[in-house]
Order: sequence, then structure tokens, then C-alpha cells
Amino acid sequence: MTLEGGEGAGKSTQARALAAWLEAKNILVRLTREPGGSPGAEEIRQLLTTGAPGRWGAVTEALLLSAARRDHVDQVIGPSLTAGTWVVSDRFTDSTLAYQGYGHGLDLGALRRLQTFVVDGLRPDLTLLFDLPVEIGLARSRQRLGDRVGVEDRYERLDSIFHNRIRHGFLDLAAGDPERFAVIDATAPIDQVGEVVRQVVTDRLLDRTA
Amino acid sequence: MTLEGGEGAGKSTQARALAAWLEAKNILVRLTREPGGSPGAEEIRQLLTTGAPGRWGAVTEALLLSAARRDHVDQVIGPSLTAGTWVVSDRFTDSTLAYQGYGHGLDLGALRRLQTFVVDGLRPDLTLLFDLPVEIGLARSRQRLGDRVGVEDRYERLDSIFHNRIRHGFLDLAAGDPERFAVIDATAPIDQVGEVVRQVVTDRLLDRTA
Repeated sequence: MTLEGGEGAGKSTQARALAAWLEAKNILVRLTREPGGSPGAEEIRQLLTTGAPGRWGAVTEALLLSAARRDHVDQVIGPSLTAGTWVVSDRFTDSTLAYQGYGHGLDLGALRRLQTFVVDGLRPDLTLLFDLPVEIGLARSRQRLGDRVGVEDRYERLDSIFHNRIRHGFLDLAAGDPERFAVIDATAPIDQVGEVVRQVVTDRLLDRTA
Repeated sequence: MTLEGGEGAGKSTQARALAAWLEAKNILVRLTREPGGSPGAEEIRQLLTTGAPGRWGAVTEALLLSAARRDHVDQVIGPSLTAGTWVVSDRFTDSTLAYQGYGHGLDLGALRRLQTFVVDGLRPDLTLLFDLPVEIGLARSRQRLGDRVGVEDRYERLDSIFHNRIRHGFLDLAAGDPERFAVIDATAPIDQVGEVVRQVVTDRLLDRTA
């Protein structure tokens, strides 16, 4: 299962709450995130998130993200799924399509082919897309950054036109694959969003696998 | 222009000699190498060449090499070519096809598509393939490593069956693109190989561009 969305959408908070809720149901859960999630991928994440903004071109960035993803799949996601553990990942392939494709304008077909090479057919059973207006997300995100002075996060300093392209990219991806995606209104309070998440997971996964 | 071949083929020595010879003819030359060649790509090279052998799977390795290559193209090769400077690169895309494709068995079609995405149509005018029997190359390579105790170079510790696959991979790539490739017998003494290199470059590039 993957959680996707723009900045300040509350993905990470919801991912933690969801994992805890599933564990309380005696489901084995591996909570993870991208970029990163495995020791090698975290090293690649360091290359991506530190240094001057724009140090990497969009194609190089897509390739580094893809290398990190493959390591994450090889070392963590694949073995977890094989062991029957549910994987809850904060971001996955859709983020690359939304950010590097819709956001930076790289060719979507080329990015999709790249992702096919990277994940080799692996596909989330469910993707929760946390959607909210860009201005709200960026405001939340800036507030959070204010609490972590000096934190370097290139994505969050980019402009709102760019983030609007990403938002509509995610919505476009969701519209193209409604079987996998569930679009969740992330403007509501955390608890309320969490309730919707639990309902969607119950309907789409728990009731089906029960 | 690119120089390709297995371990101990003398590529780096020949690349330096060739660059010096071209410069003596008042040709602007940028001598470079992969993986690496730009500050970002050298950081990625560090990830690839340090740590435990096998820390990266073959696909992850291909993606990291590709990220490094794209940065190298964006930062060094592209700007140099635009400025009218000749680029002499010790390894380029063919190494990925030979090592990750023929060597590690990744799908060649997928790797070619990946390289198309990475270099976006950039193609060397000439590729010198330094060919020699694997045993000779590995012996030369081990001798060199003996002089640099503690140097970590994963590729050079891999076995000769693997290196034979790579050798035949390079020869197969050359056979498939004779217009671009020149296969050079690298068993001869350095000076003699250098003489052949200068002759090939004269015939294929200098006399044509004169």
C-alpha cells in the first residue's frame, strides 16, 4: 500500500497512524518511506536532499530516485511482501511520475518505462492519494519547516505553480487507475482524515482479504 | 570519442596519451572518465565503489551508473561539445551494456532504452574498444592493485567467467556497430597500441574533419 500526495498533505502522519491501526489488528506491517527506506537508498537520499538546489538535473534526479527505489524494493519491500508482511510506503513510483513528469516536464512515457524497469511489475494493492489545495499544503509545510531550522528540503522551496502541476498530475494518475487509487480530501482535520483512511482500507483491502 | 574495454586493457593510459597527442595538434580536448567525470557523478561513484561487494543489486547499479552518466553529460560532456572541445571519455554507455547487460545478465533491450533516456541521443563519433584475453587483463589489473594496497574496486575482484562474458559483450556491441567502433588488439606493448590508436583516430576523425 502506498501513500501519495504533495507537500503538507499529512501523508507521514497518516502512514504512522494507519500502520499502528493495522498492527492492532494483528497484521504484520512494515512502515517505510521514499526516497530512502533501506540503508543504501537512504545514502542516495542524502545525495538528493543536500547541497545546492538545482545541483541535479531532472533526469539525473529521476535516475537517483529510481536507484534508491530499486534498492528499497530489493532490500525491504520485496522481502517483506514475501514474508507476508504488509508494506505501507510513504511515497513510491507515482511520486516520480508526478514530480519529475508533471512537475519538471520529463516525458511521462519514458518515466513509466523507467519505472517498469525499476520495480519489475511490483504494483501497490492500494494507493491513497492525499489531495489538498497547494496553498494549504505549502503553508502547513512551511510551518513545519519553521520548527526545524536549517533543514534542507529542496522540494519544499519550489514554487506553487510547480506544486499545482504536481497536484494535477497526481489527480490525473488517480483518474487513470481508479482501481488502485483512492483520492482522500486532506483538508479535513487529522482525525477525520484518519477515519476516511481506515474506512477505505477496510473496504478495499480488509473486507476483500477477510 | 570513447574508450572501452575490460580490466587491464590499458584504456586510461591510452586515453591520456591520446589526449596529449590531440592537444599537440592544437585540438581542444576534455579528457574524462566514467563512472564520474563531474563533481556529482564522482559522489555517485563513491557510492558504487565503496562498501561491501554486492551491496547494490545489478539493476540498482545500472541506475546509479546512469544517474552519474546523466550528470556527466549535463555538466561536462554536453557543454564541452557545445564549445567545440573534443571529449575523450574513458568508458561510457557501452560499459553499462557490457557489464550490467552481458556480465550481470540484465535485459539488453531494457538497458538500451534506459541509455536512450540517459544520454538523449548523444552518440560518440568513435569508440575504441581495447580487446585482450581476460587472463592477461586480470593479471595486469592485479599487478596494478598490488601497488595500491587497500584500494577497493569491486569490478576487479569478480571472476574470470564474468569477465569473459563482458569481453564477448563488447565484441558483440562492436560487431553490431562497425561504423562507430574500432577494435584494437590490446595485448601489444603500450607504445605499439598507442600507434594503432593514433592511426585509427587519424583515419576516422582527423582526415574526415580536415
